[in-house]
Amino acid sequence: MTASKVKRIAYLGPHGTYTEEAALLHDPTAHMTPLSSVLAVAAAVDTGMADEGVMAIENSLEGSVPDTLDVLIHESRLLIRRELVLPINHQLMAKPGTSVNDIQVIYSHPQSLGQCRRFLERCFPKAQLMASLSNAKAVEEAKASPVPAAAIAPKRAAELYGMAILASGIQDHPVNVTRFVVIAHEDSPTPTGHDKTSICFSFDRDEPGQLYGVMGEFAQRAINLAKVESRPSKETLGKYVFLIDMEGHRLDPPVKAALEGVRKRVGMLKIMGSYPRFRNGAPA
Amino acid sequence: MTASKVKRIAYLGPHGTYTEEAALLHDPTAHMTPLSSVLAVAAAVDTGMADEGVMAIENSLEGSVPDTLDVLIHESRLLIRRELVLPINHQLMAKPGTSVNDIQVIYSHPQSLGQCRRFLERCFPKAQLMASLSNAKAVEEAKASPVPAAAIAPKRAAELYGMAILASGIQDHPVNVTRFVVIAHEDSPTPTGHDKTSICFSFDRDEPGQLYGVMGEFAQRAINLAKVESRPSKETLGKYVFLIDMEGHRLDPPVKAALEGVRKRVGMLKIMGSYPRFRNGAPA
Repeated sequence: MTASKVKRIAYLGPHGTYTEEAALLHDPTAHMTPLSSVLAVAAAVDTGMADEGVMAIENSLEGSVPDTLDVLIHESRLLIRRELVLPINHQLMAKPGTSVNDIQVIYSHPQSLGQCRRFLERCFPKAQLMASLSNAKAVEEAKASPVPAAAIAPKRAAELYGMAILASGIQDHPVNVTRFVVIAHEDSPTPTGHDKTSICFSFDRDEPGQLYGVMGEFAQRAINLAKVESRPSKETLGKYVFLIDMEGHRLDPPVKAALEGVRKRVGMLKIMGSYPRFRNGAPA
Repeated sequence: MTASKVKRIAYLGPHGTYTEEAALLHDPTAHMTPLSSVLAVAAAVDTGMADEGVMAIENSLEGSVPDTLDVLIHESRLLIRRELVLPINHQLMAKPGTSVNDIQVIYSHPQSLGQCRRFLERCFPKAQLMASLSNAKAVEEAKASPVPAAAIAPKRAAELYGMAILASGIQDHPVNVTRFVVIAHEDSPTPTGHDKTSICFSFDRDEPGQLYGVMGEFAQRAINLAKVESRPSKETLGKYVFLIDMEGHRLDPPVKAALEGVRKRVGMLKIMGSYPRFRNGAPA
């Protein structure tokens, strides 16, 4: 990509999703292509149809986004080059003129329904909750509903689809943020002094203490682990791929040494990228 | 509960879900109450409305079921007293007389849609995929659809709802099993020699090597860990509750000693129960 060319970004659409908000925060000047799945976003970047992809990887209430982890582990060689952390602020919206008292059906992505469970139980105990494949899709479905319906979605979706906001900040927990990653063929190659590195690995055999041995490589070098997680290997129940996010860049000497130590202890090791740790208001 | 009384089991319904299959495998003589959420199942057992609850906790392709983990960690004092592992065999079903060529919409739970992604892309590239809150709900929605529609659900749902099976075993990966847990006020109190124990814990402060220290308590006693996982603490992004499944019963001396060691190293420790490891065909 030359500097004069407009960057092309693929993201999990449609218009009006939280991922679109993250993509715009990442690069407001880019050409944006909304796609219908995380797998499609990865394929777009893999094939050069887009320069970068943006997808949610983790929410502070719901945990990791399995689709994103699975794409990064199993389905692509793309690397993480940036992380972004955005507050998630759910809005209840309906067609203008809809009365709160009339609402019979509420659409949203199952994760969003889960994040607003207490609000829904208290304020809409009799409403029928309907799952949608995205928050933006939920708004479309609420708009097309023959009975009075509402949707839970971001503010931007209300603007795009001409909906009226009935309630704001309806999530049960005040702290609700989502971490997004920007994926590309290259990670962030230059250490900045405040980086993170994401890796995944698995073992060929099942022996006690294996994971403990890997974690020792980091502990003995005082490398702080931001996250430790397991995902199914997809081979059999009880066989896992482990994911670790650590502080530091893969080229920082202690991290580099630890990763060399890890490589000797595991069957598969994939370095999913080093990238600057997100700080609010930090430049791209 | 006296031996003469029929056991009452609450499970995540409606009729025709995989969880119902698991509940029937657990105790075919019990009185079954299908409820609409994992939280409702836990509440039923908590309050004595049911003696036991059955819920999915982990799938070999999709990973943990966040709702179940969150209920066990945050929302109840119930314990795990049994685990069951069932093969998941997805069927494509529609109203009798529906032609495969006419199907325009396919309903299922997002996890099931994900597990059949390749089949759907190849055989139904133009069908609209619709999210449902359960597999059984998907069958209801397909049945009520004004345009030709199908649902992905277990075989039992086809029988219960009078649907015709169009394709069987449509999941992308041949190994697709789900682990269910039976929860109650007590776990399985007597060691059998082939048990598992599930715990969760968190740290008050964030220091390098803490998790490594906990894992050392197990490694030094050669206790095999079946699973290590992190879930959001729901307080802030980057703060986690860790879950470990280990081999052995909480009353087995090495496990008991390890758990005493862990208790000194963590802020919160919750022993979620000891229970016999699932073996195919094992008696209840």
